[in-house]
Amino acid sequence: MTEIDLKTQTIAVLGGTGPQGRGLARRFAQAGLNVVIGSRGSEKAEATAAELAEATGGTVSGADNATAAAQGDIVLVVVPWDGHGELVASLAGQLAGKIVVDCVNPLGFDKQGAYALAVEEGSATQQAAALLPESRVVGAFHNVSAVLLENPEVTDLGTDVLVLGDDREATDTVQALADTIPGVRGIYGGRLRNAHQVEALTANLISMNRRYKAHAGVRITDV
Amino acid sequence: MTEIDLKTQTIAVLGGTGPQGRGLARRFAQAGLNVVIGSRGSEKAEATAAELAEATGGTVSGADNATAAAQGDIVLVVVPWDGHGELVASLAGQLAGKIVVDCVNPLGFDKQGAYALAVEEGSATQQAAALLPESRVVGAFHNVSAVLLENPEVTDLGTDVLVLGDDREATDTVQALADTIPGVRGIYGGRLRNAHQVEALTANLISMNRRYKAHAGVRITDV
Repeated sequence: MTEIDLKTQTIAVLGGTGPQGRGLARRFAQAGLNVVIGSRGSEKAEATAAELAEATGGTVSGADNATAAAQGDIVLVVVPWDGHGELVASLAGQLAGKIVVDCVNPLGFDKQGAYALAVEEGSATQQAAALLPESRVVGAFHNVSAVLLENPEVTDLGTDVLVLGDDREATDTVQALADTIPGVRGIYGGRLRNAHQVEALTANLISMNRRYKAHAGVRITDV
Repeated sequence: MTEIDLKTQTIAVLGGTGPQGRGLARRFAQAGLNVVIGSRGSEKAEATAAELAEATGGTVSGADNATAAAQGDIVLVVVPWDGHGELVASLAGQLAGKIVVDCVNPLGFDKQGAYALAVEEGSATQQAAALLPESRVVGAFHNVSAVLLENPEVTDLGTDVLVLGDDREATDTVQALADTIPGVRGIYGGRLRNAHQVEALTANLISMNRRYKAHAGVRITDV
C-alpha cells in the first residue's frame, strides 16, 4: 500500500480556532499543504484562516465545521471532548470515505491537575470510529504541545507523534502528515484499541509541565 | 523533603527471576546498591542472585518473596499481573512503612498483539496502593525494555522512567533509584490516578517493537 500524496489533498482542521487546532493548521500551511479551518461559526474560522495565511504565506481558508469537513480530504478533529461525539456523529455524511484523524484527549481537571476520563468506547478515537463506520479513523497528534506548535520561533518541535489505527494506508498517510512538521516524526503507535493510553498520557504531560515548567513531549527511543 | 540515601538501603526485587526483574536487579547491583532478589522459591532466587553477583561484582542475595520483602527497604514488585493482587496482599505486613515500587503492566495478548486490561482499581499501582495502606506505593519502570536491561553490552539505555505517586519523598527517591541506571532519567510522571496509561503504554511499545524491529522506549522532551 502506498501513501497518499499530501500535496493533492485538502487538510481540514475541525476546531481549528482553538490553540491545538490552530497550531496544527499553522504547521501544515507552513509545509505548503492546502488547509481549511473549521469552527462552529464560519466568521471566526475565516478570521483565524486569514491570520494563518498571512503568518505562513500558505493557503488557508475558513468555514463552519460541516463545510470544512465536506471540503477536506483528510479531516482532523481537534474539538473539546465535551461535544466530541455529537459533532462527529453529525458529520458522518461529510466524512464518509475519508481519513479522519482524531486528536482529542478526554481529560478532566481539578485542583490536583488533569486526569483521564473513562470513555465508553475505550477512547475518543474509538468513539469516532464507532460513529463513522464509513470513514478511515486514525488517532494522532495527542501529545504535541499547542504552545510549541503556535510559536513561530520554534523551528524544531523535537517530538514524536504516535499514530494509531487499524488501516495501514491511513496510518502511513497520517505519519507522513506528521512528518511535515519540523522536528516531528510520525510513528506507528498501535491499533485503535490501544489509543486510550496515548490520549490519557496527555494528563501526565500536563503534570510534568507543572512540575518542570516545561512543554513536555514524547520521543520514542530505538525507533 | 529530602531523598533517602540509596547506599544505605536494601533494594528488594520481587519477581526478580523474570526478565524485567532480573534486568533491574542487574542494573542496581552494577550501581553498587545492595540487592535482594525475591521469587516464589528461594532456590531459583538464590541461583539468579549468584549469577548476577558474579556478572556485576555487586552484592546480590536471593530469597523467597516474603523474606525478600521483609529484608528490603525499597521493594520493587515485578511479578506477572496474574496473581499480582494476591501476592501484594499477602505481603502487607512485610511491606508496611516501606516504599513499594509497582512495575507491573496489566496487559492481554492475542493474535493482534498486546492490549491494556481494565483494572478495577484503575491500575496495577492503584491496586497495590489499595492493598497496602501502610506502604508508600509508587509506580515506575513500566516502559523499560527487559532486553536492554539484561544486555551487559548496553551501557546507555537512553530512556526515561516515569515515576508516579502522591508522596513526594517517595517519588523523589524512586527517581534517584532510576537515575542509577546508565542513560536513564527518573522523571516525575504524575499522581497515582494517572498510572494506568503509563502501564498501558507498554502495549503500544510492544506494537512499535513489532513494526520497527526495535526495543522501543520513551524519552520526555523539554524536561
